[in-house]
Amino acid sequence: MSSTAERVAPKTLPGFMELLPNEQILFNQLADTIRSVYERFGFLPLDTPVIESAEVLLAKTGGETEKQIYSFSKGDSNLALRFDLTVPLAKYIALNRNNLAFPFRRYQIGKVYRGERPQQGRFREFYQCDIDVIGDGELSVLYDAEMPSVIYSAFRAMGFADFTIRINNRKILNGLFASLNASDKAADILRVIDKKDKVGGDLVADELKAMGLAPNNVDTIMNFISLSGETDDVLRNLKSMNIGNELFQTGVSELEQVVDGIQMFGVPPADFAIDLTIARGLDYYTGTVYETFLNQYRGIGSVCSGGRYDNLSEFYTDKKLPGVGISIGLTRLFYQLNKMNLLTPEKPSVSDVLIIPMTSELGICLRAATELRNYGINAEVYLADKKAKAKFSYADRLKIPFAVIIGDDEISSGKYSLKNLNTGEQKLMSLDEIASEVKTKND
Amino acid sequence: MSSTAERVAPKTLPGFMELLPNEQILFNQLADTIRSVYERFGFLPLDTPVIESAEVLLAKTGGETEKQIYSFSKGDSNLALRFDLTVPLAKYIALNRNNLAFPFRRYQIGKVYRGERPQQGRFREFYQCDIDVIGDGELSVLYDAEMPSVIYSAFRAMGFADFTIRINNRKILNGLFASLNASDKAADILRVIDKKDKVGGDLVADELKAMGLAPNNVDTIMNFISLSGETDDVLRNLKSMNIGNELFQTGVSELEQVVDGIQMFGVPPADFAIDLTIARGLDYYTGTVYETFLNQYRGIGSVCSGGRYDNLSEFYTDKKLPGVGISIGLTRLFYQLNKMNLLTPEKPSVSDVLIIPMTSELGICLRAATELRNYGINAEVYLADKKAKAKFSYADRLKIPFAVIIGDDEISSGKYSLKNLNTGEQKLMSLDEIASEVKTKND
Repeated sequence: MSSTAERVAPKTLPGFMELLPNEQILFNQLADTIRSVYERFGFLPLDTPVIESAEVLLAKTGGETEKQIYSFSKGDSNLALRFDLTVPLAKYIALNRNNLAFPFRRYQIGKVYRGERPQQGRFREFYQCDIDVIGDGELSVLYDAEMPSVIYSAFRAMGFADFTIRINNRKILNGLFASLNASDKAADILRVIDKKDKVGGDLVADELKAMGLAPNNVDTIMNFISLSGETDDVLRNLKSMNIGNELFQTGVSELEQVVDGIQMFGVPPADFAIDLTIARGLDYYTGTVYETFLNQYRGIGSVCSGGRYDNLSEFYTDKKLPGVGISIGLTRLFYQLNKMNLLTPEKPSVSDVLIIPMTSELGICLRAATELRNYGINAEVYLADKKAKAKFSYADRLKIPFAVIIGDDEISSGKYSLKNLNTGEQKLMSLDEIASEVKTKND
Repeated sequence: MSSTAERVAPKTLPGFMELLPNEQILFNQLADTIRSVYERFGFLPLDTPVIESAEVLLAKTGGETEKQIYSFSKGDSNLALRFDLTVPLAKYIALNRNNLAFPFRRYQIGKVYRGERPQQGRFREFYQCDIDVIGDGELSVLYDAEMPSVIYSAFRAMGFADFTIRINNRKILNGLFASLNASDKAADILRVIDKKDKVGGDLVADELKAMGLAPNNVDTIMNFISLSGETDDVLRNLKSMNIGNELFQTGVSELEQVVDGIQMFGVPPADFAIDLTIARGLDYYTGTVYETFLNQYRGIGSVCSGGRYDNLSEFYTDKKLPGVGISIGLTRLFYQLNKMNLLTPEKPSVSDVLIIPMTSELGICLRAATELRNYGINAEVYLADKKAKAKFSYADRLKIPFAVIIGDDEISSGKYSLKNLNTGEQKLMSLDEIASEVKTKND
């Protein structure tokens, strides 16, 4: 290209995360940890297309989500980018039901797309890390109890000690509103009570009254959402409310089973709680719902949410396919943790060793690299013709912990100089000694 | 949903790969192997957005590729889906040059999009697995020699023994055509000689004559493309052609250095060869080019290609950023290998163990699962209320190698029944005995 006039200013679109390598290493560490926990629990991998037929993807959607969807045409096809991993799963199971073993346990870690107005901490392209268990016709509520144990393991593995998995059951909410003859106001009531933490109980009560609810019904709701504390107490208090509604009773009974199950699954009582204000959107969930908060960083919002749905694939098939699942919004989680400097690398660099040739006998340096790699060590050779200072500065910028310096002296001695780039310590060693030294320091 | 009339037939778009779980396990195994080799050589991870500004993405493109690009508008932005990982890399480096250490070594494994006409084995969404090394201002030709050693390691690690990395240098081709005063016909000549394997030398010579090339020039070209065999012989013969063109001579000299380097990097002579017919498209590459063929499956075409480019980011910056890279087209490679049943799983299932409760003491079964997971074993518990036959059939369909059967007898004995589901052998063991037995069989 001869003229600069044709150049385009390089840019990455707002709302799209693009990391520097040292940040990407941290991001991948989180993603790998989550994947490894999901596999530890036996979830099967799945990878569905980012692009789907618009008709398929939008079979259910409406309202706010639909406006955010990236949709377009190519040839005579109407296409759309997936906005979550649940709708593609619903399609996948409807399509492949005869080839799957049920209960079908799958995880998927992938990018999804929502054309939200970009703002700090909100992304238009972001990773979701989902697990779901789908039953063919029926699904034991025990699987609802298993989800928190996976959440617990995942957040522990990511290094968090202080978090709370909050649990509720949509049947309790729906049953309560039905018993108050307020089912038609459910959406508004939920929106109002969701603000309780922020605005306080008095304002919530005022707003509920302003919606036209009878004072005794407002009292019932305020009494209901004030129930908190030990799960046993909440459950006992829920029962003593004497709500004469079958759905409510079913919800309480399911919640009790889930709470019992969670304890059997080994989640410590301190790490989960009943939170009767959690609803997770209006249409989707039909039973258990989850949200997860890092207690020291409540401002981040829920870092892992999900719930039970009776009919995953109802828009694609008449088969009843109940499921339960959770999702970690990894991009947002990473963004917040990284901003607060809460992430520490298990390994600061990809390479464990930088081999620095100080000789014209390059073949010996390259063979040393191959040998170290065969020992399971990540090794690269600095091949550019630069001064020694530039070579060490490269290792420094990449935070590579060790240099192996190979000069003519080393070659004649049959040993190589291993330099610990953190301590500055340097010693002559054979390659297998180097390998075990590097491995020891890495562990 | 009450009416079936509103249902949408579930489908996945043609040209989009969507695998069953057992295939996805194999796919991930290949991807993980490639990633692990790339990291073994110290390449840094990168993850750029799937969506870019159309202006940025299409700064260079034209012709056939541009027609295949998925582009669309959202709000007042013109957007496009990436069609390779090289253009996003060019943008990334132009944008982040001051924050990167050079030579910058990065890998990226991600999906790219091309709206090709779908046909067997061609995909509109496919994974590329790229590595590139980019220099700031200059880049030693030794990095050209390193690429084949990474290809060699990756394909060996994927289980292939018989492949050939074919190498050429664009300067040789361009210099030859210039010396024949046929630079304006270069594209056509390359297209014709590329068919030599298929149609034979005579037809190629006829077509070259029909293009208006003088008979002695056709002879020179036919002589040139017939050079093959040992790399030393090809290089000697190239020199003895006495082509009086500086570019040609530079190309031969670079090719010689690369061939020398490849051997120093430890790639066996049987696994690479000079192939003077390889050009890899017209505009992009400026020096070394690579293609890789699985010798028993030549019909698949090149499974790993790439080359050297003098000015990676020329459409975004006036900085000279020479680079060299290769790409494995993973989706296509997987498709072909899977179709031929050439892939064998390292592990047939995600779960190593299915825990089958035959008791109402579910807590004991769940604790056993947690303990096995703490030993590093992937374990799931079958929680659905089904007959024993259904439970074993589930393990069978998922190819889970072991079942741990926990009934009331086992509980009272303090040991559990480990059943090897391949041999049918069953014995009572403690959990730590089970853990070591399962681990032994997995290795």
